[in-house]
Amino acid sequence: MIDEFARNGSLLELYGGLLTEKQREILELYYIENWSLAEIAEYLKISRQGVYDILQRAIRQLNIFEEKLGLLRKNEQKIARYNNILMKMQELLGEDNYKLLLPYFEEIKNLFD
Amino acid sequence: MIDEFARNGSLLELYGGLLTEKQREILELYYIENWSLAEIAEYLKISRQGVYDILQRAIRQLNIFEEKLGLLRKNEQKIARYNNILMKMQELLGEDNYKLLLPYFEEIKNLFD
Repeated sequence: MIDEFARNGSLLELYGGLLTEKQREILELYYIENWSLAEIAEYLKISRQGVYDILQRAIRQLNIFEEKLGLLRKNEQKIARYNNILMKMQELLGEDNYKLLLPYFEEIKNLFD
Repeated sequence: MIDEFARNGSLLELYGGLLTEKQREILELYYIENWSLAEIAEYLKISRQGVYDILQRAIRQLNIFEEKLGLLRKNEQKIARYNNILMKMQELLGEDNYKLLLPYFEEIKNLFD
């Protein structure tokens, strides 16, 4: 289970395209650029409360998309299944051959992100 | 490039959760169960034209979701990159070792669907 901040960032990456431009901008500043609410408020010339409200509403929407499509949940399941397959291949290959292939296995793992 | 019928079926699997229940039911009957428009119309007791209109509107929406999130496009890219990595591993492993791991590679490939 990842923490809520990281989870919201992941939801933003998955479903950000479904938000309005304004919502996406604010969430990206907050979750990716790590700006504070005050900094975003000053930059966009709206109140801190205004930023907070947009953020809360957008997070609710991202969670609704996740309830409907479950992309984050499915990704986590895929990574778990992939790690499982990796372990079986490691047993079969032995340590040396497995190490030889490790860069490729890492490349494949990145495809699940 | 997959044909339009198969592509719409894939879009349905990816984004069906964002459609209304009625839209999803009709699209599943058409694209997954392969019923005709006339069969769906009779089953739901609406006109054939009504079924057609719901189908067309839902397909437009699925395409808008794909424009916004690009899950199908990204999946196709991932499969292409995975096949590429597989080829490099095949060269490195030699035919016999590669064949030994083939069931696992297939299992991994299924994770991209």
